[in-house]
Amino acid sequence: MKCIIEYDKYCEFPIQNLPYGVFSTADNPTHRIGVAIGDLILDLKEISHLLNGPYLKNHENVFREETLNGFMGLDKNCWLEARNTLQHLLSGQNPILRDNPELKSKAFVKQNDAIMHLPAKIGDYTDFYSSIHHATNVGIMFRSKENALMPNWKYLPVGYHGRASSVVVSGTPIHRPHGQTLIADGTPPVFGTSKLMDFELEMAFFVGGKTNKLGEPISVKNAQDNIFGFVLMNDWSARDVQKWEYVPLGPFTAKNVGTTISPWVVTTLALEPFVVDNYPQDPEPFAYLKHEDKFNFDIKLEVQLKPEGSNTPTTICRSNYKYLYWTAKQQLAHHTITGCNMNPGDLLASGTISGETSDSFGSLLELSWKGAKPIRLTDGSQRKFLQDGDSVIMQGICKGDDYNIGFGICEGKLLPALSL
Amino acid sequence: MKCIIEYDKYCEFPIQNLPYGVFSTADNPTHRIGVAIGDLILDLKEISHLLNGPYLKNHENVFREETLNGFMGLDKNCWLEARNTLQHLLSGQNPILRDNPELKSKAFVKQNDAIMHLPAKIGDYTDFYSSIHHATNVGIMFRSKENALMPNWKYLPVGYHGRASSVVVSGTPIHRPHGQTLIADGTPPVFGTSKLMDFELEMAFFVGGKTNKLGEPISVKNAQDNIFGFVLMNDWSARDVQKWEYVPLGPFTAKNVGTTISPWVVTTLALEPFVVDNYPQDPEPFAYLKHEDKFNFDIKLEVQLKPEGSNTPTTICRSNYKYLYWTAKQQLAHHTITGCNMNPGDLLASGTISGETSDSFGSLLELSWKGAKPIRLTDGSQRKFLQDGDSVIMQGICKGDDYNIGFGICEGKLLPALSL
Ligand SMILES: [Ca+2]
Ligand SMILES: [Ca+2]
Ligand SMILES: [Mg+2]
Ligand SMILES: [Mg+2]
Ligand code: NI
Repeated sequence: MKCIIEYDKYCEFPIQNLPYGVFSTADNPTHRIGVAIGDLILDLKEISHLLNGPYLKNHENVFREETLNGFMGLDKNCWLEARNTLQHLLSGQNPILRDNPELKSKAFVKQNDAIMHLPAKIGDYTDFYSSIHHATNVGIMFRSKENALMPNWKYLPVGYHGRASSVVVSGTPIHRPHGQTLIADGTPPVFGTSKLMDFELEMAFFVGGKTNKLGEPISVKNAQDNIFGFVLMNDWSARDVQKWEYVPLGPFTAKNVGTTISPWVVTTLALEPFVVDNYPQDPEPFAYLKHEDKFNFDIKLEVQLKPEGSNTPTTICRSNYKYLYWTAKQQLAHHTITGCNMNPGDLLASGTISGETSDSFGSLLELSWKGAKPIRLTDGSQRKFLQDGDSVIMQGICKGDDYNIGFGICEGKLLPALSL
Repeated sequence: MKCIIEYDKYCEFPIQNLPYGVFSTADNPTHRIGVAIGDLILDLKEISHLLNGPYLKNHENVFREETLNGFMGLDKNCWLEARNTLQHLLSGQNPILRDNPELKSKAFVKQNDAIMHLPAKIGDYTDFYSSIHHATNVGIMFRSKENALMPNWKYLPVGYHGRASSVVVSGTPIHRPHGQTLIADGTPPVFGTSKLMDFELEMAFFVGGKTNKLGEPISVKNAQDNIFGFVLMNDWSARDVQKWEYVPLGPFTAKNVGTTISPWVVTTLALEPFVVDNYPQDPEPFAYLKHEDKFNFDIKLEVQLKPEGSNTPTTICRSNYKYLYWTAKQQLAHHTITGCNMNPGDLLASGTISGETSDSFGSLLELSWKGAKPIRLTDGSQRKFLQDGDSVIMQGICKGDDYNIGFGICEGKLLPALSL
């Protein structure tokens, strides 16, 4: 597809992608909605009057808001019309933008000149646990090979509520936390800085569309209408804090440290060409979780670790979204089966995405096998868990024949603990 | 203290209480902030120009908003000034309201004519587990008397993130949910309606004041500055769903069913006369959790159960907020110790409040001892768990010599399951 903006063939943001984000610039601190194209951002506030097709014409205001919640809350006809309209404008088939140099100079901003913000006000954030390899690895480490998976794991997508306020956008530094940990069973806990800081490679989707009322589950058949798009996520985890606190009500302060997401929301529409078979499920899921259509995606994921002062990040994990056992549709159907009401802008994360091989594990806990097998970095140093100054950089790419779809970067640096 | 509004001596909403809520009326659907006084509501939108002391004069707008988040987000000087100003106006010491019949007729609304709404937009909701009797009872039932409390329980206030979107105001009916449950160990789970619906008697506080940034804990010494006020809470729980799903990441869909809170937020200022000794803590808590000042309150709590069609509710539980082992200040300090950022309007719940004696247990799970000892209602029927049509009514009262402080009512009815 032709584009009035030039970019490399394997650029992450071709005209086939068009992910949405929220940005500001040094000269204009107003948060506004944009679409990534090549190295640029198309400022939708500047062209909201051109997004005036039959579905959107009464909703132009959503492109002038400071978050994507309004646009996410429209239905999939609106999402498709926005995409088609933007592709027409950017391809030059509709010459209005192409032939208006004044508008063009206002409407395009260099990504390098932009400050990215959270794409939406996140009302609620949920973290699932849907990678069978991750759940099995953790189970082997903390229980045994025989009892690796809990009895409920293959019957329902296990998940828990996370802390929405602590979700931050890529680039936000994270402080090593203080907390309680147990040095040895039977001894009293100690208080100090976490010694076992980790990342978790995840992806997450934003809820959109007309959502359900409290008490009314979302059917797995219609769940896709409420899945707006996806981001990369790093669910920072203080493993030692988590281990001591999580019984019996689940992870809590070990996860509040911060959760980083990439700024560009890649729409479900853009991912459609990369759909692959769902992960085979045995036992067969209950009817409320069963869907025959494919809703799994070939998204190549990579984690790099870059020590303080180093210029050479080391790729420490190569995984793929397609390794997830439970689909996003199943996650949403299960989340709402007892009646939980969803809102546009809610964020549902996949859980750590690990593949079968040891180079595809999505956390240091697994990569270093609880510290037993330190991993080696290109600068010669080793890691069991994160050190102060380490940056964790996540990327995701769908590789097509003629173009790629990228997710941009989800990056965060671990700073030393603050003194209390 | 005199009041220009008449009320009974033991009315729940005397001039010493002045709880804040959000209401609308049939003739004016705009949500507005009010204060309960006697049987009336004082509409603060109508008198916002009178709330103009040195601290509030630049913040009058918060009384014209549709939620309490803005007012909650001001500091404690503002909270105290608002309380003092309202007491002056309502006592008639300041005659401006007393002697203005036109303003009075606009500013007072009968509580019976008002529709109550959630007092704040709840960004995040957390549920603790801070009653030692409740945690011990549950531990005995599901483990053993010897291992009733988990090793971490006396070292930190165990808690987990809840679902903010499913918090509803008193009066909202709740549907019996569908979900997965396990009939017997080793058999596959079944799907159907929950058979073990329960309530949990809790209280919760709203966060206010200038809150912390991500990464910066709230010190237990300053925690009080972020505790705006308290409500009653019913944390509806599908026990059979919870038991199957909660390992290892905690309760999830069993709690999404809905969480009911009372509409009137009783301020920490109003509770000060009812402060009592903190619950004795052994072992001594870590420094970040330790405070010498009293922050425990004598709030008599009662739960009534009223079957469908019955006119005579049965009081099935008499408990007290003061039974909690961990204080609200400790809950807030622990919640933020790893850096979790708080926002005005966040809701932190106590966990089920059970006393030592069997008539003070705060859930049917405990009252019927897992169904082994059904409780008898005044209409002759028995309950192990909730039946369709049952209303659960919670009340809270601080009894003083000259006046009471009440929390109003936290009520909800369990409706039959919807067909899927
Ligand atoms: Ca996670
Ligand atoms: Ca609870
Ligand atoms: Mg996190
Ligand atoms: Mg609940
Ligand atoms: Ni929110």
